[in-house]
Amino acid sequence: MEDSVGAFVTNGRFRIEGASGGPLAGLTFAAKDLFDVAGRPTGGGNHDWPRHRPLPTRHAWAVQTLLDAGATLVGKTITDEVSLGILGENPFDGTPVNVAAPGRVPGGSSSGSAAAVAAGLCDTALGTDTGGSVRVPASFCGLYGIRPTHGRLDLTGMMAQAPSSDTTGWFARDAETFARVSAVMLGEAIADALPTRLVVAVDAFGLADSETARALRPAVEALSRLIGEVREETLAPPGLAAWARAQRTLQPAEAWQTFREWVDRDNPRLAFGVARGLLQGSMIAESERQWATLVRLEARARVASLLAPGTVACLPTTPFPAPPTGLSLSEQQPLRDRITALTCPGGLTGLAQVSVPAATVGGLPIGLSLLGAPGTDASLVALACAMSRSGRA
Amino acid sequence: MEDSVGAFVTNGRFRIEGASGGPLAGLTFAAKDLFDVAGRPTGGGNHDWPRHRPLPTRHAWAVQTLLDAGATLVGKTITDEVSLGILGENPFDGTPVNVAAPGRVPGGSSSGSAAAVAAGLCDTALGTDTGGSVRVPASFCGLYGIRPTHGRLDLTGMMAQAPSSDTTGWFARDAETFARVSAVMLGEAIADALPTRLVVAVDAFGLADSETARALRPAVEALSRLIGEVREETLAPPGLAAWARAQRTLQPAEAWQTFREWVDRDNPRLAFGVARGLLQGSMIAESERQWATLVRLEARARVASLLAPGTVACLPTTPFPAPPTGLSLSEQQPLRDRITALTCPGGLTGLAQVSVPAATVGGLPIGLSLLGAPGTDASLVALACAMSRSGRA
Repeated sequence: MEDSVGAFVTNGRFRIEGASGGPLAGLTFAAKDLFDVAGRPTGGGNHDWPRHRPLPTRHAWAVQTLLDAGATLVGKTITDEVSLGILGENPFDGTPVNVAAPGRVPGGSSSGSAAAVAAGLCDTALGTDTGGSVRVPASFCGLYGIRPTHGRLDLTGMMAQAPSSDTTGWFARDAETFARVSAVMLGEAIADALPTRLVVAVDAFGLADSETARALRPAVEALSRLIGEVREETLAPPGLAAWARAQRTLQPAEAWQTFREWVDRDNPRLAFGVARGLLQGSMIAESERQWATLVRLEARARVASLLAPGTVACLPTTPFPAPPTGLSLSEQQPLRDRITALTCPGGLTGLAQVSVPAATVGGLPIGLSLLGAPGTDASLVALACAMSRSGRA
Repeated sequence: MEDSVGAFVTNGRFRIEGASGGPLAGLTFAAKDLFDVAGRPTGGGNHDWPRHRPLPTRHAWAVQTLLDAGATLVGKTITDEVSLGILGENPFDGTPVNVAAPGRVPGGSSSGSAAAVAAGLCDTALGTDTGGSVRVPASFCGLYGIRPTHGRLDLTGMMAQAPSSDTTGWFARDAETFARVSAVMLGEAIADALPTRLVVAVDAFGLADSETARALRPAVEALSRLIGEVREETLAPPGLAAWARAQRTLQPAEAWQTFREWVDRDNPRLAFGVARGLLQGSMIAESERQWATLVRLEARARVASLLAPGTVACLPTTPFPAPPTGLSLSEQQPLRDRITALTCPGGLTGLAQVSVPAATVGGLPIGLSLLGAPGTDASLVALACAMSRSGRA
């Protein structure tokens, strides 16, 4: 199938057949170019990344798991440079087309994986999510997407960014495929039992555009009917701005530790905005990092108390649908800030999060996110399936 | 002639014949890709620079001046990205080969112009010098090079970096060609009269590697014999480190003003080190800029008193010959710092400076610089010619 949306990296179309007779037999998948595929360079969205690295000799755990389950790998997809980006514009490899929102960004950093699934070039695709890199493109492209509980999956063969927040996620166009893939990746059956209490995160809805919050209302109502008990609560008592600030302290500081030696040795080519992000990470004071660590502890405690067993929270995945491509850096900045305010709970606390395609705003898709305590991934997937059956997602 | 040293930009080989019968008839020249040539993109060493700019409709003043004088333009040469670099390594366009020092950098940012002249691909070549971008490659490639008095030449059609330091310069392999081109560019005959007093800048020699200082001694002695009166003096009473700090405050702060709108709008691809330099420029405090402005005033007064009419100073153009290619950023940093300590008087004070190929260290060329008060360019060129005739240059 032709790469009609520019989702795959150069020389990134190939085919590795899945094991026969597995639970994912008949499905095709793509892997973000942050995952190792044996014998092929892991590009990392940066032309200087593979330069001094040996070719991987083994598939990444996530790739091997899908192949073993019978899915067929059809290629490697474009990512924001070294996973540092949330909009999905990569000036070196190109910006994958978002078929659900033409002229708009696909979201990043798992841009090509989302674009490929949205365009029907494969059934599912692997992404990574550190600060929102699966959830944001899922929302912008109208897909199901998951950021699993931090630390649950084996990240072997996945390029790191900020290890205390890094996760492997995946996308699908429909709930049934999403559940099949999730069962394999999570190693857990997707049972029918649903959460019994719903928390509507009022602070998160308050940060969304009013049109977006309004468009998501029917989906929230459908969710309420499925679950029964509903209450409105503030997700982040100190403010999502405080949590976002903590995430934007810890993640860039860690990313700098991950990339500093490479940057010094290879002086890599990067878009200015990406280089700036790395440098800002290098300049974070230890006192700021300590403050952010304390905020993270508090956020984890908050999530543990709010998301008691049987409780799920919902919030807009992104505060608005996909912005136009080609914005200037200063136009992008406030958008990035607001996106991070909604995505930060994931990276900060390690909870499980599933984004379901729940509405459109002016014809553009927008996701509703289901948040659960660490370990409740399968239950969130089950809820997404139930929403789909109810006609709301 | 084949571009055996990778000095020219992609699609940068072409031929525009000079006017017939001019003083430079029979000479060929190249122009750094910071100079406009009508009908061709001005690349600026950055693939995103020409994107939103119209093709130049007129030649830059310097290009037109050489064409009018009869020289034939043979192409456009590689430069460090938007002229921000002193070593001459451009990961987008490639690093021109320094035929005088294989395996070593050519020096930058006028890397391709110097490499092309050194390799005999043209007789002379235009460069720009803001913080050392003609002088350093002249030293590293064993060429004559000039940074003319600031403000003397018309910079129309030359891409700016830091206007209060920007100049147009040029290279040649031999003193006679250097003098012919200089007479045209300066619009002034190169008379035979030489300066009558020589100042040996002891602080500058003290910052050079001892092998470099020792290797330059015979050239300084030859210069002494040509001039007569010789004395040793400190060029920068507050220290060359203080002058260099002032230059490294003013120049990046101005460069940021030059490029900030472009950077914000186009988010250009840059090597990490170049992006870092721009960002450091963006973070310079106004109080630092004010201090540097005061140091500049003091430096100008010092140069005016030291370089009274008839006086010329000499110093090593660079503290060492060309370093190896492929150093890490942290390995480059102390080298850059020492280079700037020797080149800063030019950008800071606007004086005239000519670098002559004066010695070799371990087979690698090193330049000796002649400094004169603003406006004394022709007299420095005459001195370079006299050194050549004496067998010392």
